[in-house]
Amino acid sequence: MDVESFLKERKILIDAELEKILPPEDTFPASIHMALRHSVIDGGKRIRPILTLVVNELVGGNYQTLIPFACGIELIHAYSLIHDDLPAMDNSDFRRGKPSCHKAFGETIALLAGDALLTLAFQVMTDPVLYETHHPLSIVKAIHVIAQAAGLQGMVTGQTLDIETQGKVFDLPLLEYIHTHKTGALILAAVKAGAILGEAGEDALEAFTNYGKTIGLAFQITDDVLDVMGSTQTLGKETGLDSMQGKATYPGLLGLKESQKRIRELTQHAEQALSQFGRKAEPLKQIARYLAERTK
Amino acid sequence: MDVESFLKERKILIDAELEKILPPEDTFPASIHMALRHSVIDGGKRIRPILTLVVNELVGGNYQTLIPFACGIELIHAYSLIHDDLPAMDNSDFRRGKPSCHKAFGETIALLAGDALLTLAFQVMTDPVLYETHHPLSIVKAIHVIAQAAGLQGMVTGQTLDIETQGKVFDLPLLEYIHTHKTGALILAAVKAGAILGEAGEDALEAFTNYGKTIGLAFQITDDVLDVMGSTQTLGKETGLDSMQGKATYPGLLGLKESQKRIRELTQHAEQALSQFGRKAEPLKQIARYLAERTK
Repeated sequence: MDVESFLKERKILIDAELEKILPPEDTFPASIHMALRHSVIDGGKRIRPILTLVVNELVGGNYQTLIPFACGIELIHAYSLIHDDLPAMDNSDFRRGKPSCHKAFGETIALLAGDALLTLAFQVMTDPVLYETHHPLSIVKAIHVIAQAAGLQGMVTGQTLDIETQGKVFDLPLLEYIHTHKTGALILAAVKAGAILGEAGEDALEAFTNYGKTIGLAFQITDDVLDVMGSTQTLGKETGLDSMQGKATYPGLLGLKESQKRIRELTQHAEQALSQFGRKAEPLKQIARYLAERTK
Repeated sequence: MDVESFLKERKILIDAELEKILPPEDTFPASIHMALRHSVIDGGKRIRPILTLVVNELVGGNYQTLIPFACGIELIHAYSLIHDDLPAMDNSDFRRGKPSCHKAFGETIALLAGDALLTLAFQVMTDPVLYETHHPLSIVKAIHVIAQAAGLQGMVTGQTLDIETQGKVFDLPLLEYIHTHKTGALILAAVKAGAILGEAGEDALEAFTNYGKTIGLAFQITDDVLDVMGSTQTLGKETGLDSMQGKATYPGLLGLKESQKRIRELTQHAEQALSQFGRKAEPLKQIARYLAERTK
């Protein structure tokens, strides 16, 4: 299979649904609706919602009816980028090749746009279209997993530590703790949600948990490596920011070569975690490799 | 019945559950956990979660098992206060007689604390304890109503307009639009959630919707009136801020006397909306009157 075409097909589904979910730019009051579209439309790889769909398909779920739920996860990712870019956080002027939300619309609207997306996510994940096609208990369980990952047990704690440890020397266990919370948690939750909503059994859920954990960590180490090696033009955001801001990174602590080796090891573990699914797991394995080898 | 004792009894239940929901202050990383407790514990009337419980009891629900869900609604209220107080929003230094969250912990932690509470709300509302005692479909529907009220169809749009219209002269329909979105929406949603989770019928739901809408608007007009009349000491927050910030208010547009008359009318409508429930509706009627006559 051609993984890039495969991902592109799914991305088109996600993008079309996001287009429907977000109200038109001229909805009253226009400021916030413009900001939401600026930050969500035409942006990103949509890797989290794609993982939800692909895992769901693997366990025999009807992934087409799951697209709105998957988009909810993407909205949570988008909210986190808007808030992370704010001056009180990472103070980033660019995101996805465009001015960041607060640069384009001011801090007040950026703050509110993030709040709106985080809330809209849970609205979308409880849309009637979902409980007409999925067991309501599965929806409740999947939302619980997503909320845990987005909050204190995941992204919020990761971002808190990411900011608080700037300029401080620290060790690999703490860096891994930050990475698994800040980035890994939502990737893992996206994978688990696809399985839960596909009514996967305990064994399958455990396998997906291992897969999600390892690709989540590999994803953030790859981000660290790209921040050192990539160019602003390729990534669409400023590079070299991590070291400028005194953030610890895998290349900073382990060196570039050792970091790349760690990404390869994690990716192998991710593939091995799916052995029980045989050839059906090929798309997820290829996604793991694609994420490890990406240049942006 | 003595409405103050009645409310106090329910408030004790809510406070005890919030105490359990929020991790201890020394949880790693301590900064954010201290900020959460600062902003949630010992603060506020808990009127939203109390409404959820009282409505639920009226329709025959087992309101004791609904306490965690009700607390989720209070967490959304608490998040909105933290973000509204930020310098990029209302720039308020005091809240509930204490320094506001960003004054005590800085802007970064306040921003993250708000994000954490909004997320924790949905985590709590999907807690296993709820689906062991309530129909999962009712939970999904109630969450949908809450998310709508917190987001673009409610609080976020209300707050956006509240900020954007500062210093601008405008008319009563727009002011009412802001009030019903910024404050009314979550009060209405709290009422509706109690009914939905108690499996109320269509007629009852319509009655509660009318009740929730009218007390929600009356609540915000009362806030406007207290901002003019109250003292900082009684309210625990700065007063006279609305006119200082050039915010339109009911007393500003209609005068104090006409505003107080409007509160009385809305409260009467709220009571009438509950006529089908007979004497059982007495607590909700008394709560409506209590909210209209409060001095803080």
